[in-house]
Amino acid sequence: MVDHRFFVKPEPLSINDILSSVQGLSLAKGDDSIKIHDVAPLHEADDTQVSFFDNKKYLDAYKASNAGAIIVSQAYVDTAPEGAVILVSASPYADYARVAQMFYPEPSWNRSYIAENAYIHKSAKIGAQCIIDHNVYVGKNVEIGDGTWIKPNTVIGPGVQIGQKTIIGSNNTLTHCIIGDGVRTLPGVKIGQDGFGFAMDPSGFETVPQLGRVLVGNGVHIGANTTIDRGAGPDTVIGDGCRIDNLVQIGHNVKLGRYCVLVAQCGVSGSTELDDFVVLAGQSGVAGHLKIGKGVRVAAQSGLMRDVEPGEEIMGSPAKPIKQHLREIATLTKLTAQRQKNK
Amino acid sequence: MVDHRFFVKPEPLSINDILSSVQGLSLAKGDDSIKIHDVAPLHEADDTQVSFFDNKKYLDAYKASNAGAIIVSQAYVDTAPEGAVILVSASPYADYARVAQMFYPEPSWNRSYIAENAYIHKSAKIGAQCIIDHNVYVGKNVEIGDGTWIKPNTVIGPGVQIGQKTIIGSNNTLTHCIIGDGVRTLPGVKIGQDGFGFAMDPSGFETVPQLGRVLVGNGVHIGANTTIDRGAGPDTVIGDGCRIDNLVQIGHNVKLGRYCVLVAQCGVSGSTELDDFVVLAGQSGVAGHLKIGKGVRVAAQSGLMRDVEPGEEIMGSPAKPIKQHLREIATLTKLTAQRQKNK
Amino acid sequence: MVDHRFFVKPEPLSINDILSSVQGLSLAKGDDSIKIHDVAPLHEADDTQVSFFDNKKYLDAYKASNAGAIIVSQAYVDTAPEGAVILVSASPYADYARVAQMFYPEPSWNRSYIAENAYIHKSAKIGAQCIIDHNVYVGKNVEIGDGTWIKPNTVIGPGVQIGQKTIIGSNNTLTHCIIGDGVRTLPGVKIGQDGFGFAMDPSGFETVPQLGRVLVGNGVHIGANTTIDRGAGPDTVIGDGCRIDNLVQIGHNVKLGRYCVLVAQCGVSGSTELDDFVVLAGQSGVAGHLKIGKGVRVAAQSGLMRDVEPGEEIMGSPAKPIKQHLREIATLTKLTAQRQKNK
Repeated sequence: MVDHRFFVKPEPLSINDILSSVQGLSLAKGDDSIKIHDVAPLHEADDTQVSFFDNKKYLDAYKASNAGAIIVSQAYVDTAPEGAVILVSASPYADYARVAQMFYPEPSWNRSYIAENAYIHKSAKIGAQCIIDHNVYVGKNVEIGDGTWIKPNTVIGPGVQIGQKTIIGSNNTLTHCIIGDGVRTLPGVKIGQDGFGFAMDPSGFETVPQLGRVLVGNGVHIGANTTIDRGAGPDTVIGDGCRIDNLVQIGHNVKLGRYCVLVAQCGVSGSTELDDFVVLAGQSGVAGHLKIGKGVRVAAQSGLMRDVEPGEEIMGSPAKPIKQHLREIATLTKLTAQRQKNK
Repeated sequence: MVDHRFFVKPEPLSINDILSSVQGLSLAKGDDSIKIHDVAPLHEADDTQVSFFDNKKYLDAYKASNAGAIIVSQAYVDTAPEGAVILVSASPYADYARVAQMFYPEPSWNRSYIAENAYIHKSAKIGAQCIIDHNVYVGKNVEIGDGTWIKPNTVIGPGVQIGQKTIIGSNNTLTHCIIGDGVRTLPGVKIGQDGFGFAMDPSGFETVPQLGRVLVGNGVHIGANTTIDRGAGPDTVIGDGCRIDNLVQIGHNVKLGRYCVLVAQCGVSGSTELDDFVVLAGQSGVAGHLKIGKGVRVAAQSGLMRDVEPGEEIMGSPAKPIKQHLREIATLTKLTAQRQKNK
Repeated sequence: MVDHRFFVKPEPLSINDILSSVQGLSLAKGDDSIKIHDVAPLHEADDTQVSFFDNKKYLDAYKASNAGAIIVSQAYVDTAPEGAVILVSASPYADYARVAQMFYPEPSWNRSYIAENAYIHKSAKIGAQCIIDHNVYVGKNVEIGDGTWIKPNTVIGPGVQIGQKTIIGSNNTLTHCIIGDGVRTLPGVKIGQDGFGFAMDPSGFETVPQLGRVLVGNGVHIGANTTIDRGAGPDTVIGDGCRIDNLVQIGHNVKLGRYCVLVAQCGVSGSTELDDFVVLAGQSGVAGHLKIGKGVRVAAQSGLMRDVEPGEEIMGSPAKPIKQHLREIATLTKLTAQRQKNK
């Protein structure tokens, strides 16, 4: 059950309200006038709540569910539990997400607040209906679009541009970057600091000035304590719609295409380019100066040291096609067992 | 030698004072009225200092030590250096820790201070003898227990509850969470931000509202820049007494039992449950939706992709029972050497 | 092209100005009175810009470059593009870095600014020409050297000493440490918090007071959200000139020699000592209580579990000499292929 200390208690919605808002849903069974009060998992939901079923593993829970309404694919309409309103969808989980957003919408974009202890340089341009929260620092020539919220104790360095309806989390530092619309950064994100660039010669290390920026596209989400360095000369680019988890490292000059997914603690080294829809699982790493094709999927903890063609699935360190990697692991297990037997 | 710019110079204590406070110690040799002024390692300690011996590797240092008092197990009383007071313990290192805490106690819980530039929402309830430090943000309906200290530049989001005698480090952001008594968070910890939850469908990614919380038990320690996401619906739970190191990632819905140890840079993926006393070594990772039994130990950099029975020791990526993993490594080394010889 | 919202447009310099400042350069071709306005990559530079050529991969770009001046090694003077001023160097990239620094110098050390909402304890000593930025906290008995800049929302704990011309990034927390001259920390760095030290006994975990410090040498650079714990008794030491990337973990009592390079997301466990010029690649890890010789190079994602002699190159988890590791990988691939063929 949702704790209403943290989440505003939602307004009830009729099935009809839901059907009007979420285009992908249609009514397969039940009464579209009944009121739904909240969302809940299949096994917890009562007859005032809406749930979804999208994973055969939970078929028993589906059949036994007391939910008031359930979002399912067409194939499961016939096995629906008695009494539930059944809403059919081609993407039950995504449509459930849309319904849950109706009950728990993002904060209104219609408020406006500048904390009195925020520092805002007089040259900065703050859009309409922004929130600039407590202890925020906004540097010279910063531009912040309408409806954007900068959470407490965050630093926005000189010249940074932030789009509309973006939420920048607390304890962030953003410098040398241009941030799109509808972006979300969680707490502790650091964007635009110097890339790791230096030359070695006999006298030691010589810092190479990092003269690029970070460009973050629209709708990008960036996880807690993730770091994205600015380019050395070219820019570091995060394509529209990318989802980046916590504690991820993105080096200078990296380019991510659209809708890439970078799971927690993975890292991308300098100057590597990922095409659209690439997935890097947790703790994986990609070496520098590589090109990773569209839709490539890299398994957890893998280490990628070569270019990869579109659509490949990759595993291991150094990473190989997943089937080959699994075959090699199996070979070693079998050879080890043979040696044991022959002892 | 301890630098007294950073640590308050301790008051001297007699052996008798120490014996009265630390129940596990008993006097095996020497005079219990002598005064001890500080703690120090075996090879550095002088006759005013107390040390401990718990690792055979340092037997020579023990025999040659000039320490005024040494904490050892019964087996080493006879080989003690001449002149030292010998204190016997069944757990010499733990009892040394208790003695060191006597010389270097935590800050007094009897002071009370609200920095004038802290922001505290008028609805927040702050206990007795709390410190709310500079540039701290305390949101609506927050409740903070007696004796708790919130260090500078930290953000406590709306509705958060924090127990008694807890110390929240600087540059933390805590939202959507309930924190126990006697908790310690180091600088940069982020707790309660959105889990990494979204649905994919042909139109892109749809964010799934994250409607759970983080529950942190009593006596938990959390390392610098570690991130703990709130649950998607169920809560993320950190059991009493867990010790979590720096830069650790804990995904949404994860449950840690009591007294788990998570070493630096390890990660636990969403919805995985660890029973009590599980140890994850540095840079290890655990995949999502797994159950890890009581007392399981996972070696450094291992990648766990299946459920594990209580007490197992696990190594490799993908992780296997440690003996099997080491045998496989040895097999590969031997087969490689054979191929070299046959060339 | 450099975005002058973020970087001050440089003043033009003559080739002569450059030759006077960068000792390693000499004029091989062209007119030393021409003016250079900026730096740029070979393929983008126009005749008012200086570039460098240091990697045969870009030989075609070099021959076709329109740059006004190019820094190269002696061997490439003859193949220089027509019309460019050619500057010869034994270290073209390092000398390019020095030239780029002339166009994009660090901020002037001649300004002085204390933000009115910074908190500075009355006992703290702030040098001449320092900047103490917005929402900074400076504790009791802190000493900050001349020309040092503390960026916004950073916390400097009691007793900390910071040298001259050091720049401490925003959202840092520095406690129990002594920081050298010319140090750079990027945003989110945490230095001096408690090491991960506790004793286990049947009653649970007993915290061992961490009584050491962190000593950071001159010219050290530390990346965003990196964490360095203070010593348990001995100090944690970072030698002069080390370059540490983002999200790196350094445990208590670790000693780094001079000019070590620690790439993003690597970790060094407690009490390990690295000699000078050691390189740890990304996501590598070093176990505790080891000694790593001068100039050792550890490959990405490797896990080091033993002492290493000077100059070794190491790879794998557990790590081995790189040649052996690669041979073992190749063996497994070949044995797997043979088994496939024999099926």
